[in-house]
Amino acid sequence: MKVDGKDYRTVWMEGNDVKLINQTLLPHKFEVYSCRNHVETAKAIKTMIVRGAGAIGATAAYGVAQATLESNEDNCNDYIKKSIKTLQKTRPTAQNLFTGITYVYNSIKNNSNFNEIKNIAVKKANEFADYDVEACKKIGEYGSSLIKDKCKIGTHCNAGWLAFVDWGSALSPIYSAHRAGKDVFVFVDETRPRNQGSTLTAWELAQEKVPHAIIADNAAGYYMKKREINMVITGADRIVANGDAANKIGTYEKAVLAKENNIPFYVAAPTTTFDLSLESGDLIPIEERSQDEILSISGIRIAPKESSAKNPAFDVTPAKYIAGIITEKGVIKANKEAIVNLLK
Amino acid sequence: MKVDGKDYRTVWMEGNDVKLINQTLLPHKFEVYSCRNHVETAKAIKTMIVRGAGAIGATAAYGVAQATLESNEDNCNDYIKKSIKTLQKTRPTAQNLFTGITYVYNSIKNNSNFNEIKNIAVKKANEFADYDVEACKKIGEYGSSLIKDKCKIGTHCNAGWLAFVDWGSALSPIYSAHRAGKDVFVFVDETRPRNQGSTLTAWELAQEKVPHAIIADNAAGYYMKKREINMVITGADRIVANGDAANKIGTYEKAVLAKENNIPFYVAAPTTTFDLSLESGDLIPIEERSQDEILSISGIRIAPKESSAKNPAFDVTPAKYIAGIITEKGVIKANKEAIVNLLK
Repeated sequence: MKVDGKDYRTVWMEGNDVKLINQTLLPHKFEVYSCRNHVETAKAIKTMIVRGAGAIGATAAYGVAQATLESNEDNCNDYIKKSIKTLQKTRPTAQNLFTGITYVYNSIKNNSNFNEIKNIAVKKANEFADYDVEACKKIGEYGSSLIKDKCKIGTHCNAGWLAFVDWGSALSPIYSAHRAGKDVFVFVDETRPRNQGSTLTAWELAQEKVPHAIIADNAAGYYMKKREINMVITGADRIVANGDAANKIGTYEKAVLAKENNIPFYVAAPTTTFDLSLESGDLIPIEERSQDEILSISGIRIAPKESSAKNPAFDVTPAKYIAGIITEKGVIKANKEAIVNLLK
Repeated sequence: MKVDGKDYRTVWMEGNDVKLINQTLLPHKFEVYSCRNHVETAKAIKTMIVRGAGAIGATAAYGVAQATLESNEDNCNDYIKKSIKTLQKTRPTAQNLFTGITYVYNSIKNNSNFNEIKNIAVKKANEFADYDVEACKKIGEYGSSLIKDKCKIGTHCNAGWLAFVDWGSALSPIYSAHRAGKDVFVFVDETRPRNQGSTLTAWELAQEKVPHAIIADNAAGYYMKKREINMVITGADRIVANGDAANKIGTYEKAVLAKENNIPFYVAAPTTTFDLSLESGDLIPIEERSQDEILSISGIRIAPKESSAKNPAFDVTPAKYIAGIITEKGVIKANKEAIVNLLK
C-alpha cells in the first residue's frame, strides 16, 4: 500500500518494537503506533489499534517474537508460553491470530538453544507476514477475474490493506481490477457499530482513487433489490471445514440478501483463515464486545440511561450462501471436499 | 402516553400554535416545540422535529388548519392551496401526510363561508388526530393477540407513541401485551442513520418499563438465526394496493431475514397509511436524505473528506415477506383482495 506516496505495511517489526498503523485514528490522522513489548502488542490487538484477521495474525506472530527477545535463558520456556496465552486471549474469533502464534511457536518449541530461538522467532514472524502479503496479492489476481467491467460491488467492514499486512482480501480483487483499467464502483457498508467501512474501507478506496459511496448497513438490501449492486465480496475471520465463514456482524445479513436477489456473494481469505478443527460454523466462538459501542457514538451517549445493549462482533454465514471462496490458491466452492483439497 | 406521570400526545393544537414533542432532543431532553404558523409546521416536519407516519399526518392536518386561521377572507382560497403545497413538499414517502391534508381540505374546499371554514378546519384536524389515537389503540388490541407469553420481538425504527399521536402502530401491540402481564422482550434495531431505535423506541420502552436491548442493525439477522427473536413487528409509511409496504430503510432487510428464518414478520399500520392509487411498491417515491447523515455522526465527520454517501430514507418490503398487516379493523393478509375489503 502507498500512503501519500510512501510504501507501508499495516504491521512490521523494528528492533524490539512492533509497529502498527494506528487504525483507531483513521481516516483523520495517519500515525504509526509502537508496541515496546508483547504486553503492549496484545493490548493493541484488544483495543483494535490493529484489527482485521490477517493483520492481527501477523501482529500476534510478531508478539511471540517479541516475547522471545524479552525472555532470558532461565525463564525462556515459561515466559514464551505465558506470553502466548496473553496474546491468545485478546480476540477469540479470528483464526489467523492462532495460526500466526502457532507458526512462530512451532518453529522454536523443540529448540533448546536460546540464541537460536530469538533469531528463528523473528525470522518466522517476518516469514508469516511476507506470506500474508503474497497470499493477498494472489487473492487479488484470482478474484479480479470474477469482476466484470462496470461492476458494482458491495462490501462489508474492512478487508483491505489494513485488515492484512498489505493488499487485503475482499478489496484486493477490487484493487487488482481497478489497476487493470476496469470500471468498478464500490458500495461501502458503514459497518456499525465501529464504522470500519466509513472510516477504513472508504479511506483505502480514496487513497487508491476507486469510485465508491458509503451507505448505511440498512441500505445494502435496497441497492441489491434495485440491481445496483451486482456482486458482494467480504473477508472472513475464520472459515471452518464445511465452508461456513465467520466475519464482522452483519455479513450474514448481506449474504442472505444477496442470495434472495440472485447476486453472487464471495468470501475472500488466505488459507491461514481456515480452521479444519471445527466441523461447522456453529462452533466458532463469537466475541461479545462492550455495550458502549452501541449506546454511545463518538463518546456521546445516544441511548436512554435505562437502556442496555447487546453487541456481538461477528456472525457466521452458512456455506450455502457463499458463491465461492477466493484464496491465494484459486477460487473454490464453499464445501468440505474443496476445502480439504485446497489445504492438502 | 405518560411522560413522567403526565399525559401527552405527540402533536396537538393550542390557539394558533401547533405543539410538538421535539423528537430531535430525545432521549436526553423532553421539550415541547411550538410552531406559530404553517410554515414553521412544515419546517418542523422537514427537519424531523416531528417524524413518523401518523405523527406527520396529524401535524400536516393541523398545518392546514393553521393556514386557514392565518388567511383572510380575500386570499383564503389561494392561501390555503399554497400552504397545502408547502406542507406536501416536506416529506414524500409517508401516505398519512397526504391523507391528513386531504381530510381537512375536503371538508372546507366547497365552503364559501370564511368563518365557518376556520372552525371546520380546526375541528377536522382534531378529528383526524383523535382517529389516529383510537386506531392505534385498536391496533394494540388486535396485535397483542398475536404475541405469545415469553415472546421476543424485533422492531426497526420507531413506530410507537412518537410516530403517531399516541400509542403507536408496531409498539402498540407490545404495550398492550405488556400491560396485560405477558412477558415480552424487545430487540431494538438502533436504525441508522438517524438512530430512531436507540433514541426514540428505547426511550418509549424505558418509559413503559418494557424489557429491551438495543442492537446494531447488523445484529438483527444474528439473533433471528439463533431463534432469539421469535417475531418481528414494524410500522409502515405507505402500504399500496398489492400489500407492498414502504418503511424506514433496512425494513426490507429484516423482512427477508425473517422469512429466511421462518419468523413471522408483521406490519402494523392504521388504514390512513394505505394508498390504493398505487398498484405496486415500485411506484412509491423514496426520499433521498442528506449525505451528512452518513458521513458524520453527532456533527463529527467520520468518513474521509474524499468520500461521498448515498442515503435513501425508506425501502419497500414486498407483500410476500409480510405475514400480516395489523390494522384498527383487524389483522389482514398483505394482498389486494384483503386490502380492498378492509378499506370498503
